[in-house]
Amino acid sequence: MNNPLHVIAIGNALVDVLAQAKDAFLANQKIVKGSMNLIDGPRAQALYADMGPAVECSGGSAANTVAGIASLGGKAAFVGKVSNDQLGEIFRHDIRSLGVEFDTAPASGPDPTGRCLVFVTPDAQRTMQTCLGSAGQVSPADVDPVKFQRAQITYLEGYLWDQPHTKQAFLKAAEIAHLADRKVALSLSDKFCVDRHRAEFLDLVHGHVDVLFANEQEIIALYECRTFDEALGAVRGKCDLAVLTRSEKGAVIVTPDQTITVKAQPVAKVVDTTGAGDLFAAGFLYGLTHGKSPAECGRIAGICAAEIISHVGARPETSLAKLIKT
Amino acid sequence: MNNPLHVIAIGNALVDVLAQAKDAFLANQKIVKGSMNLIDGPRAQALYADMGPAVECSGGSAANTVAGIASLGGKAAFVGKVSNDQLGEIFRHDIRSLGVEFDTAPASGPDPTGRCLVFVTPDAQRTMQTCLGSAGQVSPADVDPVKFQRAQITYLEGYLWDQPHTKQAFLKAAEIAHLADRKVALSLSDKFCVDRHRAEFLDLVHGHVDVLFANEQEIIALYECRTFDEALGAVRGKCDLAVLTRSEKGAVIVTPDQTITVKAQPVAKVVDTTGAGDLFAAGFLYGLTHGKSPAECGRIAGICAAEIISHVGARPETSLAKLIKT
Repeated sequence: MNNPLHVIAIGNALVDVLAQAKDAFLANQKIVKGSMNLIDGPRAQALYADMGPAVECSGGSAANTVAGIASLGGKAAFVGKVSNDQLGEIFRHDIRSLGVEFDTAPASGPDPTGRCLVFVTPDAQRTMQTCLGSAGQVSPADVDPVKFQRAQITYLEGYLWDQPHTKQAFLKAAEIAHLADRKVALSLSDKFCVDRHRAEFLDLVHGHVDVLFANEQEIIALYECRTFDEALGAVRGKCDLAVLTRSEKGAVIVTPDQTITVKAQPVAKVVDTTGAGDLFAAGFLYGLTHGKSPAECGRIAGICAAEIISHVGARPETSLAKLIKT
Repeated sequence: MNNPLHVIAIGNALVDVLAQAKDAFLANQKIVKGSMNLIDGPRAQALYADMGPAVECSGGSAANTVAGIASLGGKAAFVGKVSNDQLGEIFRHDIRSLGVEFDTAPASGPDPTGRCLVFVTPDAQRTMQTCLGSAGQVSPADVDPVKFQRAQITYLEGYLWDQPHTKQAFLKAAEIAHLADRKVALSLSDKFCVDRHRAEFLDLVHGHVDVLFANEQEIIALYECRTFDEALGAVRGKCDLAVLTRSEKGAVIVTPDQTITVKAQPVAKVVDTTGAGDLFAAGFLYGLTHGKSPAECGRIAGICAAEIISHVGARPETSLAKLIKT
């Protein structure tokens, strides 16, 4: 195959708007800490008016992951929808400037580029309120079979399941990948996303996904278990690899016959956890597409996650390729 | 006077687009390191296309200063021009969310909100290429006498001298302030800005300015001296206070009969010097409008500058009011 890709991803193309917030602010706004919720335009306007001074940074879960893969030196492509506006220009610039292929046709309707209001509490936890805008308009027409056939791994974010068009795009991409004998990877995205789509996610994980990424809360929610160990037992053998992240406790990689524990990398100061899971996935997929062992994939993943939580925003501030060499 | 303000400022309303760059990139683009240059729209587009992944953060020199004063707990207002676009919304949100009064009528023409492409080199130095957009449309009509009479200090950035309308707004504001027996403060902004307008700046400093802010390069450029000590001697007595900053060497405050040296505050790691001078001015003006001695003003100023250079972007990431208490 000419011009091969390591990873291609579909996801919500978003610009993050990050601000510090107190726990009391979230409580007053009746926002569940740590969650991601979809909000409409008027709600986004009202919430933004109450938000503190912010910084803007390209985001979107799967987009952050391919940005990380490109920063590691991997070849990656992204499929996602922005509008012809200033935020769309920012998103397009940032992902392309890393060398990620991104040529999805922009949305033509009145919806602006999607934005995600990210509230970072003093404990560095992030809580997200997403106004999807045109991001939710990704459709099967945006999934070019030739492009997906070029990629070793097709990476999909669970958030896509929230919108009918994006879900269809997701399914089309997964089908193309498997028909071409390629791997499909899925991130469960968010505990609340799992709660919304549990039955369908179980069906996906058990039949259509080769590599699963989930954090502790998400995998427990998927199998409705009480403990992490129960969930670990439940997922074993359901896919080639289940990569389960546990914040400062590191990660556990589950294969049909192995359980590999990876320590978290030390971080001088955790500033903002936005993108931690996305960048962990980036490091892991980079390793996987470069012939590394699961343990080595986990080590690279941990370095990428550590970089992203040491500053505000979910895109690397430094070359990850250099970071994993030192 | 009802509803008094500590400081009102006029400046270019800009959104900063900050990215890391190597020294070779600046050399290839024929950009003088450390400078601020005005560029037009097509040049901004071309340069942005070659720029690495960026983050966006409200900026503008005088706007950063009043943002800092508000973060310290002071009452501040800003006069500047944005357009009715997404970047304008970001600028307006960020400054108002700090409690700064900002109600300048937006521009109605086709120009977008101004943006400043900021290239941060590995030594944490910043080099700026500014596409003024609608920022350059501030005019005397935007200078409301009642509002300027409310402020103890009117703060003006030297960059305003680059555009005819903004220069007229500057002069009107200074005149209102002095007729109301208020103080006028000026930042020389940039060595190259001083080179462009030396004669007029000398006339301003010697006749119309009570508090002058300049860094070492700027004050040397203003008086065309060879050394800092010569420039210090030249400026003494020309205005009530000359506040001369020298990066890691701290600052020197010059009154007609005193020379007060202020040490730089320690910084664990200098990440990005964008806004260092703006936030030094913020701390100093906050102190001055709160009855502090010049030495104490300098101490507060140093703390604010140290905060801003420890992260990417020229707006405080933490409450400066809390920081100066500890």
